[in-house]
Amino acid sequence: MARKKNAFYAQSGGVTAVINASACGVIETARKHGDVIGKVYAGRNGIIGALTEDLIDTSKESDEAIAALRSTPSGAFGSCRFKLKSLEANKREYERLIEVFKAHNIGYFFYNGGGDSADTCYKVSQLSEAMGYPIQAIHVPKTVDNDLPITDCCPGFGSVAKYIAVSTLEASFDVRSMAKTSTKIFVVEVMGRHAGWIAAAGGLVADQGIPVVILFPEIEFDQKKFLAAVKAKVEEHGFCTVVVSEGCHYPDGKFLAEQGTRDAFGHAQLGGAAPVVANMIKEAHGYKFHWAVADYLQRAARHIASKTDVKQAYELGRAAVQLAVKGKNSVMPTVVRLSDVPYKYKIGHAELKDVANVEKFMPRDFISKDGYGITDKCRKYLSGLIQGEDYPKYENGLPVYVTLKNKPVAKKLPDFKL
Amino acid sequence: MARKKNAFYAQSGGVTAVINASACGVIETARKHGDVIGKVYAGRNGIIGALTEDLIDTSKESDEAIAALRSTPSGAFGSCRFKLKSLEANKREYERLIEVFKAHNIGYFFYNGGGDSADTCYKVSQLSEAMGYPIQAIHVPKTVDNDLPITDCCPGFGSVAKYIAVSTLEASFDVRSMAKTSTKIFVVEVMGRHAGWIAAAGGLVADQGIPVVILFPEIEFDQKKFLAAVKAKVEEHGFCTVVVSEGCHYPDGKFLAEQGTRDAFGHAQLGGAAPVVANMIKEAHGYKFHWAVADYLQRAARHIASKTDVKQAYELGRAAVQLAVKGKNSVMPTVVRLSDVPYKYKIGHAELKDVANVEKFMPRDFISKDGYGITDKCRKYLSGLIQGEDYPKYENGLPVYVTLKNKPVAKKLPDFKL
Repeated sequence: MARKKNAFYAQSGGVTAVINASACGVIETARKHGDVIGKVYAGRNGIIGALTEDLIDTSKESDEAIAALRSTPSGAFGSCRFKLKSLEANKREYERLIEVFKAHNIGYFFYNGGGDSADTCYKVSQLSEAMGYPIQAIHVPKTVDNDLPITDCCPGFGSVAKYIAVSTLEASFDVRSMAKTSTKIFVVEVMGRHAGWIAAAGGLVADQGIPVVILFPEIEFDQKKFLAAVKAKVEEHGFCTVVVSEGCHYPDGKFLAEQGTRDAFGHAQLGGAAPVVANMIKEAHGYKFHWAVADYLQRAARHIASKTDVKQAYELGRAAVQLAVKGKNSVMPTVVRLSDVPYKYKIGHAELKDVANVEKFMPRDFISKDGYGITDKCRKYLSGLIQGEDYPKYENGLPVYVTLKNKPVAKKLPDFKL
Repeated sequence: MARKKNAFYAQSGGVTAVINASACGVIETARKHGDVIGKVYAGRNGIIGALTEDLIDTSKESDEAIAALRSTPSGAFGSCRFKLKSLEANKREYERLIEVFKAHNIGYFFYNGGGDSADTCYKVSQLSEAMGYPIQAIHVPKTVDNDLPITDCCPGFGSVAKYIAVSTLEASFDVRSMAKTSTKIFVVEVMGRHAGWIAAAGGLVADQGIPVVILFPEIEFDQKKFLAAVKAKVEEHGFCTVVVSEGCHYPDGKFLAEQGTRDAFGHAQLGGAAPVVANMIKEAHGYKFHWAVADYLQRAARHIASKTDVKQAYELGRAAVQLAVKGKNSVMPTVVRLSDVPYKYKIGHAELKDVANVEKFMPRDFISKDGYGITDKCRKYLSGLIQGEDYPKYENGLPVYVTLKNKPVAKKLPDFKL
């Protein structure tokens, strides 16, 4: 069939607990459309795999291995942090992409990533017109930051939100037990450099009587006010949990984590926001503290993934292929919320030009008036996204996560220097 | 019945994901022995509740609420960090304990804790002879540090070990995905000030092809050798995971976490070992890193508790009551290992005099020759303890953890100043 083309799929940016569920959705659905889609070639380490012609032949993986992607965290093909410049600024890279696409008869480009990747995908989607090579580029949304526009949420976020809500609840129960003679403050640092979506998930524990103070990147840090808020909670409840976003900053834009900490040799040291906040409270009020920095543990925590999130990640991967089969280009499948309680949604799609380079922050009416909590509106929004558990299989006490064979496709072109 | 006495139960020291499962075992079993055991009074905030006559009447809690303790992390009655001095050094406190026991017809003392608490329990067990008050004191083992002697393991440890193994596996998959253009090093800091049992659990991921370097408190830190070990792993695998125990220290005893870090104002700052190690690697080799400090998240993580651990915690609570009913004093129920694969054990018991003030470290033959990994012997030991999952129930995406009513018993004595 003349129309039959191979597909390229790549993972981009920070990986998540469910990006492989999207990969699973893409590959399983492509396998069902063998009449129009040939093989799915995955980029080894994202778009770099396309530029260097380092393609992985996913047809060498069994159906079982591909199915296992659904419950395996991280990026099975490798990801990268690499943003294509504009066509004007770096025509050489686009020409190379087209050479690689031509050499391997690639007509579909599925790019699985966040905001920067949506921009890359948008640029690739313009290649048909700009450079005369027919390619359909579809973006598959993914980001724990939940900051893509139009879609109700981004795959990866619901699972981090669940992990943070569960972990904050558990650690808060712990500090409550210890507060009489020992720890009164527990500080947990969460991801989110610009948007406070993940931090907001910590606020869900307030429903269970946990006193919690949240530090959002959207709210400028006011030390005096913050210390007073913590003191009030401890005086009322005997303890307090603080959820601090890594993006929390002073009015001048300086991050809490970058307050000029130096090691014994006077070198500037990268610390976290959590120890800074914990020490600040100790100094002001004398409360004993503990602190945690969840970092990769939060975004990789497939063991406590949200069932809703896993399902959406898969469905968006599937929808991307279905959109391609329908002849679409330059679009991204989206989650369209239909109702809050019970949470209902359908899969829709958006034009990439409306997605690229737009960042979605927490609406002000999701954050309580004092700036330290979440509103009912936010609670309703978040609640749907953390519904259900989707446990991986275990063997000998550990989850069974798949590592693919990742066999390379034979190269046809000369090397390319990045 | 003349013999019928009430029981006192208290939780001591750092709480765990399963200490409430032991409470559940104690209370459910006591309820079945109504002929000899009256009510179970819990100390609010541990032994402090006994000294201040702040007792909780657990008979006011429904069977359902007590059963729910089995799947609730933290200490449901509150814990404390408070060690009784010797009888000679502080007779006043022991006399007070006896007054409270007498006032409330308490003849059984169940103390749920680690090494320090075993010592307290041992002292209380001597009161019959020393002060002429008949009391049976039974210690219920609990500590994530796994450092009590005689027993195969300590409830709380298996679940932390599982959490650390699972989390290290997940985060390692993550960094493996990112390593080509971004993060090559992931450092996770775990608990264990003196003994490296928890850090050892991170070593279980090596079976799945993850390059991991472990820093034990038992092995003096050698910066040059460590940096070389990390470099070798990165050169072979492209990335490396480092598991650092909070107790890791230099030959002179100085903890890595206390390397004299100062904030912008020159104040000494409490940091973690993880950022210190991460920055050290960056400075030597330039590798991009991420680091996490699990802190309370690890010991509170009931959502991923080991089924074996939960079962043992319950059984040891039950055994404590059974030992009391049999007339025993000054003992601790223990786990006796019968086989490694499959892991089989029975419940035995030890004399408290053999338990108190003895700390169990990792045997040297559990640590690999180079000091950075675990041996097969250690792997076999750990594997049994993390077997099985014991998921809590969820509602609206969050685990259902019980908060008891904790109704006080009416006071009968004058106040007591601690």
